[in-house]
Amino acid sequence: MPIPPRNETSTASPSGISTITVDLDDRSYPIVINSGQTNATDPSGFATHFREALGDCTHAIIVQDTAIAASAGNAVADALGTDDTFGTDDTQGTAGQGNDDLRLSVIDVASGEPSKSTDRIAQLWNEMLDTAADRRSVVIAVGGGVIGDLAGFAAATFTRGLRLVQVPTTLLAMVDSSVGGKTGINLPGGKNLVGSFWQPHLVWIDTDFLKTLPEREYVSGLAEVIKYGVIEDAEFFDYLESNITAILDRAPEPTRHAIARSCESKARVVADDERETTGRRAILNYGHTFAHAIESTAGYGAFLHGEAVSIGMQMAAELSVRLGRCPAELLTRQTALLDAAGLPLRWKDADVEKMIAVMARDKKVAHGKLRFVLPDRIGNVELVGDVPADLVSAAIEACR
Amino acid sequence: MPIPPRNETSTASPSGISTITVDLDDRSYPIVINSGQTNATDPSGFATHFREALGDCTHAIIVQDTAIAASAGNAVADALGTDDTFGTDDTQGTAGQGNDDLRLSVIDVASGEPSKSTDRIAQLWNEMLDTAADRRSVVIAVGGGVIGDLAGFAAATFTRGLRLVQVPTTLLAMVDSSVGGKTGINLPGGKNLVGSFWQPHLVWIDTDFLKTLPEREYVSGLAEVIKYGVIEDAEFFDYLESNITAILDRAPEPTRHAIARSCESKARVVADDERETTGRRAILNYGHTFAHAIESTAGYGAFLHGEAVSIGMQMAAELSVRLGRCPAELLTRQTALLDAAGLPLRWKDADVEKMIAVMARDKKVAHGKLRFVLPDRIGNVELVGDVPADLVSAAIEACR
Repeated sequence: MPIPPRNETSTASPSGISTITVDLDDRSYPIVINSGQTNATDPSGFATHFREALGDCTHAIIVQDTAIAASAGNAVADALGTDDTFGTDDTQGTAGQGNDDLRLSVIDVASGEPSKSTDRIAQLWNEMLDTAADRRSVVIAVGGGVIGDLAGFAAATFTRGLRLVQVPTTLLAMVDSSVGGKTGINLPGGKNLVGSFWQPHLVWIDTDFLKTLPEREYVSGLAEVIKYGVIEDAEFFDYLESNITAILDRAPEPTRHAIARSCESKARVVADDERETTGRRAILNYGHTFAHAIESTAGYGAFLHGEAVSIGMQMAAELSVRLGRCPAELLTRQTALLDAAGLPLRWKDADVEKMIAVMARDKKVAHGKLRFVLPDRIGNVELVGDVPADLVSAAIEACR
Repeated sequence: MPIPPRNETSTASPSGISTITVDLDDRSYPIVINSGQTNATDPSGFATHFREALGDCTHAIIVQDTAIAASAGNAVADALGTDDTFGTDDTQGTAGQGNDDLRLSVIDVASGEPSKSTDRIAQLWNEMLDTAADRRSVVIAVGGGVIGDLAGFAAATFTRGLRLVQVPTTLLAMVDSSVGGKTGINLPGGKNLVGSFWQPHLVWIDTDFLKTLPEREYVSGLAEVIKYGVIEDAEFFDYLESNITAILDRAPEPTRHAIARSCESKARVVADDERETTGRRAILNYGHTFAHAIESTAGYGAFLHGEAVSIGMQMAAELSVRLGRCPAELLTRQTALLDAAGLPLRWKDADVEKMIAVMARDKKVAHGKLRFVLPDRIGNVELVGDVPADLVSAAIEACR
């Protein structure tokens, strides 16, 4: 049985749609979570929410993942194209709403991390110009994290900034990368080294898009969901313990609830520290310092991101127990929940020395000292500096 | 005889240094205008102002124009390298100021518009990574508008944003592009189509850097200086009429004053409309709609930007007179001042039809209607829409 959202940023309608507001003054925006409403013709559909958030838009550019998200992109295009306010058939906008017709362009981007390159962004900028985009154009990113990051950075920079709508189609993107305004691309020398903080005007999360997501990817996304419970929402952790089976079955109601609570967590943290200046946003990196070292030493692609995060959370909890910062029960509960979700708990090939070397180069390291986000209880983490290297080694060892 | 600045954003010290504040809440920053103080060892030098604006900086990347600004870049590097707070010789920072040593990197960029390309920005990002830049690094752009725009965009986007110092070395960059936060690059399809609004933390204007600027470039920069008088500072226009000869001689005091008043004008406009959302910033485009059409139809490079702006201001004033929006005396005074500055007043090869076709494609055109920034008196302009094409033609004809 679901528990109600713990604050008033979320409002649920009878149809199961809930809206969370990311509170950032004049950059505030709604996250609308629903199941199968993209094409709804009543006021619960995408077109209505798009019009509310982007009233004067006359040109939208759908940037979509060719392989995975084309059906989602088509759904979005259909929703906008057949809406009688935005018809592409020369229908004038509804009187009084001030909308001209909406012109739609579609740009395809190949799946996968290689698309987050300097070459691809340059090509995307030119493709956007080819659509005759101007400053009133809106970019709609439809796909997983790669598309959201790339299209988001293109939106941030084309004519010094276009409005952006995120339509995530993977669980990971729904609960993490589509919310919070981080956009960017990779350099050969490292990931996400170039980008902008650029908040969307709307995040549209339709859980129907998850129906075709491969099981391994879906499970991987659950690592970030469980993370929110550990870092700042103990009640949500309880909920996940009770409902993990239904969520694994992708039952609409608990899936929407899990996504909504995750987005609420992220929205709270982002509202406190939009541009990573106060340090609060660092708590989102729980498990991630280890995870990046796992991904880097295993070779990118060996683990899905969420899988590495799951093992990384286990290492972080092991470390926290060793530092006497949290009871062993926390580790027990986290282990059980990650395991129930089907996530990996250990990496038998972990190379302790190599992982520590990678962590020492991590951009979150201050002056060469190892820092970790560590839990003291379910629902609270702290940034801990100056951690002895031998305990870090022991924590990694414990997860081999 | 100089008149005092008309508001309190400018403070002049006995040494002739004046500081103007660009008032943008938490993005406010000083513009420091001086003559030959870059290397000063007393508190009037660059190092002091840098330390005040960027106290915790431990790594600065000088991005400089190879051909033109290397001597200025060297002066900046010397100023930081020999300052006893920032010494690169392992001297610790002055107690209580919290500064570590400052590490300096230098990146050379070729002169000229072709450097504002997607290829060059990708290379620059990689070069910055090669310097081991991190989020606390500071970019110092030393050069003309091309370097400021390119290095500024790199600063805006590397690790989602580094702090930026602008050290303009051309008159045009001093009075225009270094102030206000516009950064960007070109696409093959058009100029400045990609970029960010990214405010610097400090603009350092040393008029000594102008000593080696070619006469034609210096005069070109005066077009933008005179523009500020027309658009929003009648008193400054008077001053320029009285002091244009001394300014042409590059006498330090009147040159500093002309730059300071120009920067004050720009700072006021930018403070009202940082991101071009209210429309106020459009007044900075006085003469520019015509100028872009001149540059585009003449082929980029035939005119320097300021030369095209000078002719464009004449066309705009001719248009305003024809529309009955301003007295002929305005045109007479503007003509006399531009002429006294050595700027061109007409373009005998202007192709009226081609120019109007270019203007119809300009991004400042709303729904295909020609809009112009037009003066009604010296010191005030308005954005005027729906201008009859035949009067535009006549205004161009009048300047052939």
